[in-house]
Amino acid sequence: MAKKVWDIIVLGGGTSALGGAIYAARFNMSVLVLTKQLTGLIATTHVVENYPGIVRATGPEFFDMFVKHAQDYKDNIEIREVEITDVEKLGDKFSVKTTEGTYEGKTILYALGGTRRKLDVPGEKEFSSKGVSYCATCDSPLFKNKVVIVVGGSDSAAKEALYTIQHTKKTYVVYRGEKIHPEPINMQRVEEQIKKGKIEIINNTNVVEIKGDKFVTGVVFDKAYKGSKDFKCEGVFIEIGSVPLTNFAKKLGVKLNKEGEIIVDRHSHTNVDGFYAAGDVTDDKYKQVITGVSQGVAAAFEAFEFIEKRKFK
Amino acid sequence: MAKKVWDIIVLGGGTSALGGAIYAARFNMSVLVLTKQLTGLIATTHVVENYPGIVRATGPEFFDMFVKHAQDYKDNIEIREVEITDVEKLGDKFSVKTTEGTYEGKTILYALGGTRRKLDVPGEKEFSSKGVSYCATCDSPLFKNKVVIVVGGSDSAAKEALYTIQHTKKTYVVYRGEKIHPEPINMQRVEEQIKKGKIEIINNTNVVEIKGDKFVTGVVFDKAYKGSKDFKCEGVFIEIGSVPLTNFAKKLGVKLNKEGEIIVDRHSHTNVDGFYAAGDVTDDKYKQVITGVSQGVAAAFEAFEFIEKRKFK
Repeated sequence: MAKKVWDIIVLGGGTSALGGAIYAARFNMSVLVLTKQLTGLIATTHVVENYPGIVRATGPEFFDMFVKHAQDYKDNIEIREVEITDVEKLGDKFSVKTTEGTYEGKTILYALGGTRRKLDVPGEKEFSSKGVSYCATCDSPLFKNKVVIVVGGSDSAAKEALYTIQHTKKTYVVYRGEKIHPEPINMQRVEEQIKKGKIEIINNTNVVEIKGDKFVTGVVFDKAYKGSKDFKCEGVFIEIGSVPLTNFAKKLGVKLNKEGEIIVDRHSHTNVDGFYAAGDVTDDKYKQVITGVSQGVAAAFEAFEFIEKRKFK
Repeated sequence: MAKKVWDIIVLGGGTSALGGAIYAARFNMSVLVLTKQLTGLIATTHVVENYPGIVRATGPEFFDMFVKHAQDYKDNIEIREVEITDVEKLGDKFSVKTTEGTYEGKTILYALGGTRRKLDVPGEKEFSSKGVSYCATCDSPLFKNKVVIVVGGSDSAAKEALYTIQHTKKTYVVYRGEKIHPEPINMQRVEEQIKKGKIEIINNTNVVEIKGDKFVTGVVFDKAYKGSKDFKCEGVFIEIGSVPLTNFAKKLGVKLNKEGEIIVDRHSHTNVDGFYAAGDVTDDKYKQVITGVSQGVAAAFEAFEFIEKRKFK
């Protein structure tokens, strides 16, 4: 018996991956979803209230809606929890090696996401979603009139700080280096907020521990601030970058930008024919569930057209 | 008292408009939504099953979720049901004239969608709402055990046909082209109904006239079907696409493509600073709720940045 060739192999198990899978299934394509774990970054979020149409859901509840939706197309979508070990081009198809066998696909939707860079300090894991967050855009509204810190010195850190103050009483940006280094425009904005007393910068300082009881109550610095290493706050936004999981794509010759993200166009094309990408692994500016899912959907449309045009045997 | 200047005025009341409004509100912008009616094309749909995360909902149910979500930000979002009569540039701001007053905004999200395309044949206007309809979901129940035609060959046409047969005796799909081209999953469903004798397809045929007395009694084709150009039916559902509502944008110098759609980039920018567009009114290739909402969200991000940069007084 000839080996099954899937119309599309979706690498990743988050919302962008499943959004693409659902649309591909609606196009009556055969869809194989390969993911280490059927879960996404969003499932780790305390509350999701920024997917238009869903007023509010917990991260796990929200993610479960996507799983249910994908399961509704079980004639077309097969999901396998395996570890991907390699992706190769094999003639006009793609071959995906996993810990449980090799699969062939006419097209690939690459949606492996990224992993948030962790601070790696005591309390970080324990208070994750209990005051510790990796997404100010998602979670800032939970900190109305509270004091929070943003850890990091990048443009993202500054932008996240600027988002938080729409809600927080005050936001401290804690940076290990000499001086935070956002884009000038964002630095300017931060400075305006410093004048208003909404933001304060603490440079040359590391967070070495996160403390709390049920929720975060403060952090410990490696250097005294106003006479003490103990610092009270109710939120800790860790914004020290993320690592897009691009290794398999890179090996195939897929182009990345200088941040290491896969460059896609408006229709989720990469520079490799039949190879699409969506979500946090791409150069999407916003890194939102809604924008990632939309990219996954575009990829399904394009993969469908690609196969029709290519006339695979 | 100085006139209120809104951070963003959203023109339109569909899902793309509300998606943008929700995000803008999350950025703590003041948002004014101006729409003739708080409703979208999707609300007229029988069933929505292609918004990832929502397995299945009726059009009205689905749209209501967006309204509820927008209402959840009532401190920031104001919705007014008015008729827009003009949009002008006024210094560095925009001025929107309506039947109930003039509003000023720093930015615009233009998401007016489209109106149903007309067949433009004798009898169409005369028998509108007397057998001629542009919404099967709304009007099918009026055609219990009757014979109707659906004019069109798109996915929407197929979906409408599938909906009508819940009520009609038989539904004919009349298409001017070679072969109707719905999504494969809907083509499959249509084929099942063809086998059951509930649907029949008439390709390569145009409707050139709609006839009736008080109500529709039939249509005239440009080509004989079973020996005659006269065809008896009691309902005519016209499902041949939509015309993007771009008149106010065009007047402002916003660039359109040759299909008359607003040209936007990946970040929902038009060629006019501070003027963003989303949804069916744009050159979005897919015209899906998910892609339109994602465009609305991008517009909110960009408008937020634009205002910060511009330093409006």
